[in-house]
Amino acid sequence: MKEFELTILGCSSAKPTPRHHPSSQVLSYRGKLFMIDCGEGTQQQFYRYGLNHNRLGHIFISHLHGDHCFGLIGFISTLELHQRTGEIVVHAPADLESLLRPQIDYYCGGETLNIRIEPLPPKASEIYNDGTLRVTSFPLKHRVPTFGFRFEEINKPPHIIKERVDRYNIPLRELPQIKEGADYITPDGEVITNAELVSPPTPSASYAYCSDTKFSRTIVPYVKGVNLLYHEATYLNDMEKTAKKRYHATALQAATIAKEAEVGELLIGHFSSRYKDEAPLLNEAKQEFFNTRLANEGMKIRF
Amino acid sequence: MKEFELTILGCSSAKPTPRHHPSSQVLSYRGKLFMIDCGEGTQQQFYRYGLNHNRLGHIFISHLHGDHCFGLIGFISTLELHQRTGEIVVHAPADLESLLRPQIDYYCGGETLNIRIEPLPPKASEIYNDGTLRVTSFPLKHRVPTFGFRFEEINKPPHIIKERVDRYNIPLRELPQIKEGADYITPDGEVITNAELVSPPTPSASYAYCSDTKFSRTIVPYVKGVNLLYHEATYLNDMEKTAKKRYHATALQAATIAKEAEVGELLIGHFSSRYKDEAPLLNEAKQEFFNTRLANEGMKIRF
Repeated sequence: MKEFELTILGCSSAKPTPRHHPSSQVLSYRGKLFMIDCGEGTQQQFYRYGLNHNRLGHIFISHLHGDHCFGLIGFISTLELHQRTGEIVVHAPADLESLLRPQIDYYCGGETLNIRIEPLPPKASEIYNDGTLRVTSFPLKHRVPTFGFRFEEINKPPHIIKERVDRYNIPLRELPQIKEGADYITPDGEVITNAELVSPPTPSASYAYCSDTKFSRTIVPYVKGVNLLYHEATYLNDMEKTAKKRYHATALQAATIAKEAEVGELLIGHFSSRYKDEAPLLNEAKQEFFNTRLANEGMKIRF
Repeated sequence: MKEFELTILGCSSAKPTPRHHPSSQVLSYRGKLFMIDCGEGTQQQFYRYGLNHNRLGHIFISHLHGDHCFGLIGFISTLELHQRTGEIVVHAPADLESLLRPQIDYYCGGETLNIRIEPLPPKASEIYNDGTLRVTSFPLKHRVPTFGFRFEEINKPPHIIKERVDRYNIPLRELPQIKEGADYITPDGEVITNAELVSPPTPSASYAYCSDTKFSRTIVPYVKGVNLLYHEATYLNDMEKTAKKRYHATALQAATIAKEAEVGELLIGHFSSRYKDEAPLLNEAKQEFFNTRLANEGMKIRF
């Protein structure tokens, strides 16, 4: 069963264009929404694609360049206008507190909605765990402190084998324990081992987000084996030197990371405004890693 | 000759919608651009409608509610990315300095582009005058200090009557002085009075912007006789009480101001997100003041 749904709200690089909005995505997992980056105009995109702010509890900000965070104050103000209550945790580089808090204090009453800013630790760390989903942050290589994020399911239960349940006439009330690993003892005292009753769980799905970063193999272990990897691909490889100088990656480099990390699928974005058509970026990446797609506003991917 | 061109970048109220962006407009006058308000996403709209940032020298911010100013930091950052140089003056309520300056200091190098924030005086005042165009600000009635703006041409030269120039064989080099009021003396010493040589100048064109404000007749003298008046019309008149409570105006009230101020044309905007179709707002305003139009993103009006 596909539990994750990713919605792309924006995939431009620093200069937005009429076609692309600044970076923002929303990952949905079992009814909970997780926002990743919040460039200018994110609030409009969020509602355009029918997302529900009551399901949002956590926002992850990769770094403090404006195209990844200038939408925060507008989005938070609008949540207040909508009388959203409770708490939203913003996981972000530490400087965000001093930049955003004065604006929140000035613009938002703050009476019902609490905004908590959690600084991202410098080294790779688990920053969220609700028992079913774990989020880890890890360092990227950009001009300012920048972080990637990995989302992965945890503790997926095994599947009950219905035919065996029927054969041994197991009451429904026993099934939760069996899912957690218990054997079943029949009324006659016969022990049916757990291994006979369950099949292995569906593999845990996972997603990783890497933007902005220059090409760096240090990223590979952090994104190893994810089902879907979003990796920035600001330029074509003929601009490799520019990419390196500006701490950005090319489409070919994104594909190299995807290949070496053996991910299921690669999604490229953060396109330079110089490209009026991203097909060459896609073609370049596909040569190295075939299972690649171009991000686009409004795109939804289930996995 | 029509010297003004107004481009609407956004005309939503506080909650933007997929159809409408937050408040921003650009008034062009003889090649110079003047921005009025700068809601979130203004930079994207500015470039979408083909405007040239090198022609922009002044931004006028009516008040500090987010839907009128959250786009400033993104727009200014992008101007720096484009290596725009020189100075931009932001005319705004005084608090903007303490809100925006820390962000400019953090995000912008500030080496080539200087952002000067000029606080708006509490009373009606001339805040810009380049010899051909004058801008005055005046107080509106909103929940926070809010200002309207009036733009008007000044010192328009009279028209040279070509037929008389030909009759008296006046050299071209004499025309600038004649435009400024000089008589012409023929080689024979005959004095041709200025009145014989020129016809009255085209009437000066003018524009006024009033958003956000509740209905108030104190506005009328400030916008008296302008060619085009933009006045907020957040609600239909069946929500007059809500409008008053929230310091906003209805379409009927906007039209009443237009009628009493004897303006040429009324443009209404700042529509509440509750209206999926603004035709009823237009119809209501037209009953009081027929020459009314609905603002819309991308609309250009020459006058």
